[in-house]
Amino acid sequence: MRNNQFARLEPDLATKITELKRIKFLNESLLQLTDATKLWRALVIKAFPQAKTLAIQQVKLAGLAATATEDFLQFTAHATVNSVAFYNVALQLLDFTVDSDFSLADPITFCQKTNLPYQNQIDNCQSVISAWYDLLNTSNQQGQVLLDRLAGDGYFADWPQPVTQPLFFNGKAQPVFATAKLRYETVYVETELDTDQDGKFDLVKVDLIRPAETDTGLKVPVLFTASPYNQGTNEKDAEQLMHKMDVPLQSKQPGIENLTAAAANVAATTEPISREITSTTTIAQEMFTGEFSYRLNDYFLARGFAVVYSAGIGTKDSDGLRTCGSAAETKGAKNVIEWLTGQRAAFVSRNSTQAITAWWCNGAIAMTGKSYLGTLATAVATTGVAGLKTIIAEAAISSWYDYYRDHGLVVAPGGFPGEDADVLALECFSRKQTGGDYLKVKQVAAEQLAAITTGQDRNSGNYNLFWDQRNYLKDMQQIKADVILVHGLNDWNVKLRNVYQTWQKLQNLPIQKKLILHQGQHIYINNLRSLDFTDMMNLWLSHELYGLTNHAEQILPEILVQDNTTPEKWHTTDYWQSDKNQLSFNFVPNKLVTQPVEPTVCSFNDQLPATVFDRYQKDLSSWEHDLLQAGSDMEKHRLIFKSAPLTKAVTLRGVPRVTLKTAVNQNYGLLSLMLVDYGMARRLQAAPSVLAVRGIQLGYNWQEENAVDFKLAAQPSPWKMITKGHLNLQNRQHAWQVDELKPNTYYSLTTELQPMFYHLPVGHQLGLIVYATDFGMTIRGNQNLTYSLALDACHLKLPNS
Amino acid sequence: MRNNQFARLEPDLATKITELKRIKFLNESLLQLTDATKLWRALVIKAFPQAKTLAIQQVKLAGLAATATEDFLQFTAHATVNSVAFYNVALQLLDFTVDSDFSLADPITFCQKTNLPYQNQIDNCQSVISAWYDLLNTSNQQGQVLLDRLAGDGYFADWPQPVTQPLFFNGKAQPVFATAKLRYETVYVETELDTDQDGKFDLVKVDLIRPAETDTGLKVPVLFTASPYNQGTNEKDAEQLMHKMDVPLQSKQPGIENLTAAAANVAATTEPISREITSTTTIAQEMFTGEFSYRLNDYFLARGFAVVYSAGIGTKDSDGLRTCGSAAETKGAKNVIEWLTGQRAAFVSRNSTQAITAWWCNGAIAMTGKSYLGTLATAVATTGVAGLKTIIAEAAISSWYDYYRDHGLVVAPGGFPGEDADVLALECFSRKQTGGDYLKVKQVAAEQLAAITTGQDRNSGNYNLFWDQRNYLKDMQQIKADVILVHGLNDWNVKLRNVYQTWQKLQNLPIQKKLILHQGQHIYINNLRSLDFTDMMNLWLSHELYGLTNHAEQILPEILVQDNTTPEKWHTTDYWQSDKNQLSFNFVPNKLVTQPVEPTVCSFNDQLPATVFDRYQKDLSSWEHDLLQAGSDMEKHRLIFKSAPLTKAVTLRGVPRVTLKTAVNQNYGLLSLMLVDYGMARRLQAAPSVLAVRGIQLGYNWQEENAVDFKLAAQPSPWKMITKGHLNLQNRQHAWQVDELKPNTYYSLTTELQPMFYHLPVGHQLGLIVYATDFGMTIRGNQNLTYSLALDACHLKLPNS
Repeated sequence: MRNNQFARLEPDLATKITELKRIKFLNESLLQLTDATKLWRALVIKAFPQAKTLAIQQVKLAGLAATATEDFLQFTAHATVNSVAFYNVALQLLDFTVDSDFSLADPITFCQKTNLPYQNQIDNCQSVISAWYDLLNTSNQQGQVLLDRLAGDGYFADWPQPVTQPLFFNGKAQPVFATAKLRYETVYVETELDTDQDGKFDLVKVDLIRPAETDTGLKVPVLFTASPYNQGTNEKDAEQLMHKMDVPLQSKQPGIENLTAAAANVAATTEPISREITSTTTIAQEMFTGEFSYRLNDYFLARGFAVVYSAGIGTKDSDGLRTCGSAAETKGAKNVIEWLTGQRAAFVSRNSTQAITAWWCNGAIAMTGKSYLGTLATAVATTGVAGLKTIIAEAAISSWYDYYRDHGLVVAPGGFPGEDADVLALECFSRKQTGGDYLKVKQVAAEQLAAITTGQDRNSGNYNLFWDQRNYLKDMQQIKADVILVHGLNDWNVKLRNVYQTWQKLQNLPIQKKLILHQGQHIYINNLRSLDFTDMMNLWLSHELYGLTNHAEQILPEILVQDNTTPEKWHTTDYWQSDKNQLSFNFVPNKLVTQPVEPTVCSFNDQLPATVFDRYQKDLSSWEHDLLQAGSDMEKHRLIFKSAPLTKAVTLRGVPRVTLKTAVNQNYGLLSLMLVDYGMARRLQAAPSVLAVRGIQLGYNWQEENAVDFKLAAQPSPWKMITKGHLNLQNRQHAWQVDELKPNTYYSLTTELQPMFYHLPVGHQLGLIVYATDFGMTIRGNQNLTYSLALDACHLKLPNS
Repeated sequence: MRNNQFARLEPDLATKITELKRIKFLNESLLQLTDATKLWRALVIKAFPQAKTLAIQQVKLAGLAATATEDFLQFTAHATVNSVAFYNVALQLLDFTVDSDFSLADPITFCQKTNLPYQNQIDNCQSVISAWYDLLNTSNQQGQVLLDRLAGDGYFADWPQPVTQPLFFNGKAQPVFATAKLRYETVYVETELDTDQDGKFDLVKVDLIRPAETDTGLKVPVLFTASPYNQGTNEKDAEQLMHKMDVPLQSKQPGIENLTAAAANVAATTEPISREITSTTTIAQEMFTGEFSYRLNDYFLARGFAVVYSAGIGTKDSDGLRTCGSAAETKGAKNVIEWLTGQRAAFVSRNSTQAITAWWCNGAIAMTGKSYLGTLATAVATTGVAGLKTIIAEAAISSWYDYYRDHGLVVAPGGFPGEDADVLALECFSRKQTGGDYLKVKQVAAEQLAAITTGQDRNSGNYNLFWDQRNYLKDMQQIKADVILVHGLNDWNVKLRNVYQTWQKLQNLPIQKKLILHQGQHIYINNLRSLDFTDMMNLWLSHELYGLTNHAEQILPEILVQDNTTPEKWHTTDYWQSDKNQLSFNFVPNKLVTQPVEPTVCSFNDQLPATVFDRYQKDLSSWEHDLLQAGSDMEKHRLIFKSAPLTKAVTLRGVPRVTLKTAVNQNYGLLSLMLVDYGMARRLQAAPSVLAVRGIQLGYNWQEENAVDFKLAAQPSPWKMITKGHLNLQNRQHAWQVDELKPNTYYSLTTELQPMFYHLPVGHQLGLIVYATDFGMTIRGNQNLTYSLALDACHLKLPNS
């Protein structure tokens, strides 16, 4: 366990006293005390909200060891507070165990080792107050700050009712709202779209959850998650539409994709009709249960925020069709924000003319969510829509081409070979699940789906108009919302280029922006023990949506990166890539070297014996192993270049660039490039382990969550992929440009791998693997293709620090 | 998806009408209707409780397809109900998707294929009522009956308040209780024990959750889970106490364990003092949150049942010490039941003389839980305590010797090499986590732990007095509660012998008993999609605890067994093992045969080269693979005997018996025997897959749960272990008897493997592997031991059907 808190404020004593009074840990009579031990005791008693009588409280106090021989009751009866006794008790309140976790003789050493905050001198009322304030804001063994734990135990359960406004402490909203009373309502927002071409604007279903206190005048901000999956998915259909990966690569006609002319081709359609509004109400007529909620949103529901979910056009109970990332989906989600800010109509049902307003909303909105959800947050931000104050976009796509393609090649998201834009559109078309409604759009939906299949053009893999219409990077200069980006450094579903490009685009915008890079794959991180992510988001949203002056924008680090060698360690930095430092390597057979090299040619053939090919098809991990392992069945089918063992550690950060001079024996070809950390080491496991089952309470009698974090694997491993990249040799200049490729002719090219942030320890070797078919991602034609490299013209450049 | 419901009652029409009126699907005016279509429509409308107005209801009805061309509204406007339209709509209400799951032209075929109940003729009011009743009790795509789903959507949310009694439908209690109002209270029961030897009876903490309606007179039954883990565990301490597995087997002195004499050795201690009761109250003074609840219990909290958790002696906030399965732990849990039935005192706090009664309890109690929890349910049942009506014991231990030992050998529970009774006692000693309280018993706890370490006697592995005191089988004739046993056929943590022995012991008792054998490992099965386990337990407990006449005892099958070859398939049977049918095999080198055989000797040596030994130590799956794989590194280190491919399928059920004539080159030795199914096949995966994330709602705005079930693995596998067993060759007669073993001398013995229930398909081969060190379970001395078998005196007998 190692404490990493970035959202803990350390105000001056006067502020601490004011805030402790606000949450009723202090009152005037306690402030009159001159006996620091008595004050300490009065504070500790309040850490047992479940104890309703003095008798019970005394049992709880006796349950705390103050020294190796006395419990808290015994100790405070005769001795005076000191820092050792204070932190002995504090550590127990933080759920650490005597003898197992720390020694009662020396709690401070444990604090130091685990990076828990402490004060050396605790001997008067001021120091007790100050240390107690800090303790309430310190993460416990489950990674939750003590005050949140106490709130889960009922500290705020008796809070004066009715709650009329949010309660802030240490810059963050506290869970004083009774979640048992939340209102769950469904409304239908009229969008600006008619994607199902029925002559009427599409209505989209919006599920909202708001504190009951809004009924009596409280206006609240909104966390809005646009989740196409939330109303269900068509998994069987998607499975059937999955594309075959075992198809040959083919030669493409040279040329340039036309990205602009097509705009004129859009058929002029008749303007859809706006729904007449015959009356307006504040009372919803439909409720809902069982929303597939995001725990970070749930957490805020206890703290004076509303949460809104909308799956969007083409989903169950909404009009319209899915378009997989097009501008229509962006607009549909943006329209929900317009309703929340009073700029657009919503109706109580899909067949009603009675409008309903978001009368309970204070007009400040954040968008949240991961993957497609975070993608829509990003997309809506690029519209600059008023009211959207910030987005927290996790593992978000910035350009759909970078999700399904790479440098002129069909490249599947990791774990989803054969998926493409049409598959995802069909999967999310949950409107199908209301059978009666589906019958009405069955035909137009089929046509629309066919158009996506055509548009995505798996045959070429080029960046074409279809993909250009799904590239949010083009519009990022219009972003007005502040942005938090979160991405897993091992995310091969939404690859790193997506977040990297967004981050670059944001650099010169007059907005606040933060970036968190973790060691996970395609996961949420709100329950990682080693990072106070939830607190950070609370600090951020209390500021962004309630206008609280808590200096979140300065306090949260510009970039946070989780260490890839040590568990539960996080680094702050203020840039991802600098071109000032570059590691450069030249190529000789089997080696990456720094000295000048002689002309040499190395070749490999991509075609595998049928049995080996069959094995790799069925067992991806076997291919992954053999690709990296010398002497395996992949031996003649790829080239491995390894550096000498590093004499000092290096942190690789940003975009690796590889320059190659290469030839192939056909008029088509693809290359894959993988950067590898070679060296025996116990590495972080791929997924976080559960450390405390249901160890985190998001409020009093509210949702619970497991505390998790990454552990080191039990056994050392000989390597780990750092990053990789792919390209079609006919797209060696641009993804939108096809060049001629003459057989057995050398071409020079420079290509970029996916961005990285990787600490490579001393003694390890850097490896670059040059290969063709990537069994997890590219098509797998198993063709007789021989690739050659003129090594003297090959270079590897790695930005680092 | 395949429907398997065993708790669905099919009453006559009159009963169906009465019950539908009770849950307000029917009323007098609907019963006056003569138009079956109108009646159908009135019923379907009620399936959308989230729709609060007619307008919304109409949208919902229009969202249902009645035929391939018309929605429900259109269809019912002109056509009349028929079975095709009825089941088209019904399947959509059950969350099946038009076109993806079933064809609107023929829903009946889908019902047949998935084993969903249906009526062929639906054309009048009676048939609509009857079919609707059945539909409400039919499992949907997530494996939850429609009425439960509707309840989750809010069907009972507006139920007349206050609720004064439980509501039963189809023999089962319905979720009409508002879980937001549940009372969470802590009391301290005075036990009959003084395990921490402080001269006072140990108080144990009891956390109870009861419906608010008990405040106004409702008396409720209790689901009581005695869970030693619930107040936390000392994982680090347990880890450190783990015993080394890499120790040599040693020769034991012949002799017989004395199981009886020791009773006289128990020191007479002074009788502890009962706490004085100075007053009595009905009002608890301590509440709790965040109990580590069991979802099956949570489910009943919405249905008029209370739930009680108690971790027992030696756990956090309780007095006493852990004793790992001893009679003291049994008594401590039994004492909680005595409090619930008014036979014993509890106090409002550990330092109070104010008593509190379970005034809200109707005196009927069930015990629930898995593993140690189910073990305590079993143990308490053997006391015959009044008020305990039934236990639902899942993966329960019946004798701790069969958990940590096997036939004179230390044999770890699967997945926990090195664990033993002392480790578990320390792990559950969560009293340590209240540091101040821990200081008071630190010394006596250490002594007690040392006594367990001595008592368990890892050196001998014999069944001794320590284990005899932890053998519940001896007292099973005293069981008065009805019993449901649940166990995973792939559970190698609590091995099958535990449940098999309990089942045998129950056979002649005058109680009701049921057995469910599933294909899981050590898991709960309440959320398996393919079995209505939760409904079955509802039927059972409504009968057992509320006295409802629902014929649960006849309706629930005697034995339910999940099929090991086909997903989501369950068999009913009324016996586990019959000795009428026995497959018998003789041994020749490499083969199991049925004909008489000639004398032959086969040998193997257990000692592995250091590198191989090291690899197996680090990677258990590699050892498991090599053990079964011909030509592997295990080749000379075990004997494989295989039958000819089976010419007809066979179901192996019960206890395999192996007779061996064997010799070893030392005066000590151990043998392991594994029965294997050899044959390429796609087999069920080891763990269930999530089929619907949070797809099951346990009530309205209450807990949610994933729907899961076992899927077939994507790839075929060449084998699967059916069962195995181990023995110390010096305990060839009894676990409590050590015999002399002369080196290189043949001894005949017959041993029993763990019980099984296994369908072996035609064409597969039965394998028996004879080996010694079991890397996952036995000690691993890597000694130079050569074992020989005189094959002509070896036999394998398998009960089957």
